[in-house]
Amino acid sequence: MNYSDNYNPSLSDTKIFNEIVKEKEHIGYYNLVTQDTTPLKKYAKTIKQKHIVVIGIGGSTLGTYAIYKFLKHSKKLEKKLHFLETTDPIDIEARLEAIDLKNTLFIVISKSGTTIETLSIFKYINSLVSIDKSNTVVVTECDSKLNTYAEIHQIQRFEIPKDVGGRFSVFSAVGLLPLAIVGMDIDEILLGAKKVHDSFFSKEILYATLLKKARFFVEYKNKFNINVLFSYSSRLEGFNKWYIQLWGESLGKIDINNTHQGLTPIGIVGPIDQHSFLQLVIQGKRDKTLTVVKVRDFEKPLKIAPITLEGLEELDYLNNLEFSTLINTQADATIEAINKEKDIPCDVITIDSVSESAISGLMYEYMLLTSLCAKFMYINAYDQPGVESGKIILKNKFK
Amino acid sequence: MNYSDNYNPSLSDTKIFNEIVKEKEHIGYYNLVTQDTTPLKKYAKTIKQKHIVVIGIGGSTLGTYAIYKFLKHSKKLEKKLHFLETTDPIDIEARLEAIDLKNTLFIVISKSGTTIETLSIFKYINSLVSIDKSNTVVVTECDSKLNTYAEIHQIQRFEIPKDVGGRFSVFSAVGLLPLAIVGMDIDEILLGAKKVHDSFFSKEILYATLLKKARFFVEYKNKFNINVLFSYSSRLEGFNKWYIQLWGESLGKIDINNTHQGLTPIGIVGPIDQHSFLQLVIQGKRDKTLTVVKVRDFEKPLKIAPITLEGLEELDYLNNLEFSTLINTQADATIEAINKEKDIPCDVITIDSVSESAISGLMYEYMLLTSLCAKFMYINAYDQPGVESGKIILKNKFK
Repeated sequence: MNYSDNYNPSLSDTKIFNEIVKEKEHIGYYNLVTQDTTPLKKYAKTIKQKHIVVIGIGGSTLGTYAIYKFLKHSKKLEKKLHFLETTDPIDIEARLEAIDLKNTLFIVISKSGTTIETLSIFKYINSLVSIDKSNTVVVTECDSKLNTYAEIHQIQRFEIPKDVGGRFSVFSAVGLLPLAIVGMDIDEILLGAKKVHDSFFSKEILYATLLKKARFFVEYKNKFNINVLFSYSSRLEGFNKWYIQLWGESLGKIDINNTHQGLTPIGIVGPIDQHSFLQLVIQGKRDKTLTVVKVRDFEKPLKIAPITLEGLEELDYLNNLEFSTLINTQADATIEAINKEKDIPCDVITIDSVSESAISGLMYEYMLLTSLCAKFMYINAYDQPGVESGKIILKNKFK
Repeated sequence: MNYSDNYNPSLSDTKIFNEIVKEKEHIGYYNLVTQDTTPLKKYAKTIKQKHIVVIGIGGSTLGTYAIYKFLKHSKKLEKKLHFLETTDPIDIEARLEAIDLKNTLFIVISKSGTTIETLSIFKYINSLVSIDKSNTVVVTECDSKLNTYAEIHQIQRFEIPKDVGGRFSVFSAVGLLPLAIVGMDIDEILLGAKKVHDSFFSKEILYATLLKKARFFVEYKNKFNINVLFSYSSRLEGFNKWYIQLWGESLGKIDINNTHQGLTPIGIVGPIDQHSFLQLVIQGKRDKTLTVVKVRDFEKPLKIAPITLEGLEELDYLNNLEFSTLINTQADATIEAINKEKDIPCDVITIDSVSESAISGLMYEYMLLTSLCAKFMYINAYDQPGVESGKIILKNKFK
């Protein structure tokens, strides 16, 4: 991974770092990188079904989808991963049409065990196909009601540790189980994350980089209240969505002084959104930071054909260009255009390849950055009390 | 369409309305609702291919995708619409795998006629399959270089009027041609838009609604610099993307006094993003307005099965509930939770059904709202000068 930015470093931040080291003792995600993956891999090997359907929502699906979307085409997987996450009846029906229910393993994921969307869909699935231990596995907390259900039916269970929050759970069974089953190398996933973990906690390069970035975001949060992630690959669309949850739900909080805090995440994709959002970044109000994510090596030698289109000869300079060169040069041109403005804070992250370790390292880096920002903002990154009132209102509407 | 909000109306706005009426004389999108669709429908009927591939980006695809995504499952179409829009080589390869190139019509769409992504992909397609008038049609301006190319090869051409900007072009051939070919009722599309047009310009209900909303957004633009569109249907995901381009690229501008202006659009989907973004809306910084879009009738009687899951008996209150009731009640609960906060501006748009006229009416309403906001902000909604410098930098990198 490669890193460049135009932020101005200021003070040193050992206090915040020490708080993170202390937090690491009771916040579980930090330490998932060293877990034993044997039980997951062993179970994954037993799965014969071709369709793997994750029933879950939010933190139970977004991280898995991010990694799957980034890698699935390059890995040529034999199994297909699907996600049933919404209560939109048209969407449920459309997704089910692509699935052979008789040849499907259902992975029901809910940390609390009573997520309304997940359980509604699971009930509906129960009316379409007979559910038992041969086609269902559950990922939940050890003492949830979903765990009780699975126990009664002798359905295999994997645990979400109590100290790992949903949006920080991609490197627990939540993400690793479905990804192992479809054929991803989950040890490589953990290795990529561990490299970032080690670099940060041993105070190597990422330590300074992330502390500087978090400090900048928080110091200027009232001017730049929007953080745009501009990913130059359509395959990073899932990563963008995962980032939006991580950032929004972790940092949108009431602080210890009872004031509303938050940094607003936006995820866009290059070059598509050069034709959609870039105009606003370049000429719009100066309320945004920009982080560009590039992929150094797409490992796809697709080339623009050396063809002259009559009337369009002016485009012949594109002939024989590899698309990977084109997209990365488009990213560089955008970065140059941004930096020419001189007043748009911008940093660039380049990941090396389309691989398990590249995407997991990027995700772990973002989890660390989120934790750091939360510390600077005097907020708890790991709860989400704001969504409870809506849940209570909903329940009362059905009573 | 149904409408409710909690904004406080203030002054009356005949000045702005009169400016829009004047602008209607030279800005083309307003008047597309009354065009003659016969040539489009006639051409569409001649198409035998099963795969329809739009090669285009930004304004050339987003509106079409919005309507297609919203309706495709409900309409049971015989033809499949694909989009090739990005220079990401993995994405190009993955999309092409789903397409039978021998049974494909290519619709090459570029207003300028020299869009780099579109022409790069078109060149690549030329190296995979023989391109001629039997499998290709072009949509562009009457005097573009792409038009010249098509003329030379006797390829059928449809025109994008000069006075219709890309992001306002969905009701021109840009959107109507592909949608007619795959079997959508394009007269219904125009009718839905026309109803909104008529309601606004004859100063009926939408006149007051939209002026009040635009005034509110602009009057409070420095406090609420973010506008969140919360669509309660996964099928509105394309609409969200279209909105982001329309809003961001139209309103992110330098105004007549040379200051950076802009309102930042965010599109989220319910109930999924209740588990991702809602926490930030409810507890985060008060910098967002929220517009909730609901679909009154999903026309899908999918029901939650009346099954008791042992251990999960507490969820039996969901038994026999239709998913459409559940999702709309979730939307209502979210709106109630938002309004309980008392300081988050929120309005609700309810469209009647999953139909051509419902989605086109919603889109036309948003185009009007965008034009109104631009007028209030002293900016030109219809250009995008900010993205030019990046284009020049890119070209120079290849010289």
